[in-house]
Amino acid sequence: MSPCITLLTDFDDFYVSAMKGVILSRSTRHEIVDIYHAVPPQDVRAGAFILSNVVPYFPDGTVHCVVIDPGVGTDRRAVVVEAGDQYFVGPDNGVLVPPARRLVDDDTEFRVYNAPYENAESSTFHGRDVFAPLAVDVAENSFGFDESRLIDDYVDLEFKDPVFDDDEVRGEVIYVDRFGNVITNIGGEKVLEKTDFGSSVDVNGRVLPFERTYAKVGVGEPLCTIGSHENFEISVNQGSGSDELGLEAGDKVVVTLNS
Amino acid sequence: MSPCITLLTDFDDFYVSAMKGVILSRSTRHEIVDIYHAVPPQDVRAGAFILSNVVPYFPDGTVHCVVIDPGVGTDRRAVVVEAGDQYFVGPDNGVLVPPARRLVDDDTEFRVYNAPYENAESSTFHGRDVFAPLAVDVAENSFGFDESRLIDDYVDLEFKDPVFDDDEVRGEVIYVDRFGNVITNIGGEKVLEKTDFGSSVDVNGRVLPFERTYAKVGVGEPLCTIGSHENFEISVNQGSGSDELGLEAGDKVVVTLNS
Amino acid sequence: MSPCITLLTDFDDFYVSAMKGVILSRSTRHEIVDIYHAVPPQDVRAGAFILSNVVPYFPDGTVHCVVIDPGVGTDRRAVVVEAGDQYFVGPDNGVLVPPARRLVDDDTEFRVYNAPYENAESSTFHGRDVFAPLAVDVAENSFGFDESRLIDDYVDLEFKDPVFDDDEVRGEVIYVDRFGNVITNIGGEKVLEKTDFGSSVDVNGRVLPFERTYAKVGVGEPLCTIGSHENFEISVNQGSGSDELGLEAGDKVVVTLNS
Repeated sequence: MSPCITLLTDFDDFYVSAMKGVILSRSTRHEIVDIYHAVPPQDVRAGAFILSNVVPYFPDGTVHCVVIDPGVGTDRRAVVVEAGDQYFVGPDNGVLVPPARRLVDDDTEFRVYNAPYENAESSTFHGRDVFAPLAVDVAENSFGFDESRLIDDYVDLEFKDPVFDDDEVRGEVIYVDRFGNVITNIGGEKVLEKTDFGSSVDVNGRVLPFERTYAKVGVGEPLCTIGSHENFEISVNQGSGSDELGLEAGDKVVVTLNS
Repeated sequence: MSPCITLLTDFDDFYVSAMKGVILSRSTRHEIVDIYHAVPPQDVRAGAFILSNVVPYFPDGTVHCVVIDPGVGTDRRAVVVEAGDQYFVGPDNGVLVPPARRLVDDDTEFRVYNAPYENAESSTFHGRDVFAPLAVDVAENSFGFDESRLIDDYVDLEFKDPVFDDDEVRGEVIYVDRFGNVITNIGGEKVLEKTDFGSSVDVNGRVLPFERTYAKVGVGEPLCTIGSHENFEISVNQGSGSDELGLEAGDKVVVTLNS
Repeated sequence: MSPCITLLTDFDDFYVSAMKGVILSRSTRHEIVDIYHAVPPQDVRAGAFILSNVVPYFPDGTVHCVVIDPGVGTDRRAVVVEAGDQYFVGPDNGVLVPPARRLVDDDTEFRVYNAPYENAESSTFHGRDVFAPLAVDVAENSFGFDESRLIDDYVDLEFKDPVFDDDEVRGEVIYVDRFGNVITNIGGEKVLEKTDFGSSVDVNGRVLPFERTYAKVGVGEPLCTIGSHENFEISVNQGSGSDELGLEAGDKVVVTLNS
């Protein structure tokens, strides 16, 4: 079966359908899957976070085409990343690196290839004119994964690690989802090494229950939990953690466990 | 041809793509169709209304996977409903019952099966970890439709019937769509038994024309009509009935026909 | 390979999934592609602009099904347009004409067919009951492209041409996209005949740089450019041209080149 091609962009507009037209004009053998198109405009970190969360669930061979590209029109490179039997196509601005890293054990196991392009006609829509055709090339095995194209000076992007200091963790908000769940860069596993569900935690001065599921607190009540993305998050059962605690993407959080 | 799998959720975020990855990882033979993902958060009734309206148009064999699930993390069951040659997968909170009921003549003709699940790893994302795999099992005929799994104590959900009293009907708003059309629980057929298009009706004290189509009134003018969902609705031609009459989902409406 | 069917509507709601159900009930051989569903309600011109921009990228045989239809319920005709090996299905209100025109050299090269319909049951949802079935008929070669159905009194829609007067151009805004890019009816090619990238232009009294790419100006700074749709547009690098200049769809723009 032919690999599927996914699309992740910050377009949130009809432009994405032109990319689909380009793909279908070259091959109708690949199922096209929308990851998300309402990524905050040019927010490379949000895009990287989103894709990192979903790639573990896609089949081998999948080609992820990402267009979150504040540098369109500059001479930034286009790259193809190969990691754990999946492929990533997009601009060399770091957006592809965290998702690739998610699929492998260490950085020696993913490879980044330069994908030179010519594009005299269009200088503003690389999603349609550069990345969509490149994604089809990769899906159809016609991209040359040549050693001479391997690069190691690709733009990297790492989510800043939180700082653990006994029971205090200093981290930051990396994404607020539609429900208002506040997702931090604090790994759930590390939190569970230091405390258990059922305990209390202090988030920026507010003491909250730390529970396995939303339903452990009453409707409208706040809690901390480990989200499906395995990060520590602040939520409200059937409400908005972001509204309740006044937290937005980029905000600092200081969490005291067992408080 | 393999049955298609539809998705109806209140995610309105990238999470739905993880469900698609799970489905495609198990089988690429099923067309995946989005019903809608911007259902008001945890609004089981809105989800039931939406799915009820579209199921009559889907082919036999279709598997509808619904994740509107305020009870995630509790011990509520997962269920599979079989009705009129279509299948429904989701939480046992009533959301699947009105759509199933729409496909059959009476309640003896649909069947509800318990679908026990084990899910130690993930307690917050049953869409990805429970319902998507279950939908594939059903689509691939590997869910055991065993009589021992049949249950009759499933959670039911019925849209409250309006009360007809001569020419007066007391009902409620069940959905406001993007255009601002106010959709009530009042069946159009029953209204047409008592009056005809071209008459006037009184809605909460406001007299409006009752017409077959929006175009029968001027642009910007309100009217009552029977929507494509066959319910009595209050609309404005090229405008918003919700704004015009100040009506939201859940509001009461008192309609006097032939007024 | 079977042709794909695209959908362009102003529904922005679950109604579009009923159209997909109708299509899949008749044939599962056609990939269904969403063009866009958040077209401003009943904005025929915006729909025509959007579809015109993407049709050049779709493969031969594609059937585009368009439901932007302020005249639903009137006796306006349904039409099928054949242009450049692609097909268009929708109401006879002009929305299909600019996209068809985009695929051919002159108006003698596209053909408009009347597609009479009977629709006693439903008078408010022609997308589901008239246009989706008609799109499948066209995709399956069962629509009779009979000469007797050819019409030449179809409703036309032309984007008003801008007026060039030496270095002054008077045009209008035809679309504002999600980023706030202000897209005008002024053709980029004609602008480039009179000035070059790197020059300055005056837009409604404000002098702006005219550049090939957003990245030529600093973050947050306005510019004029030629968009991917080949029209002259006013933008802000990583910001909103619409906010910066207070321009909305329909607004007049007076542009003085080389100012």
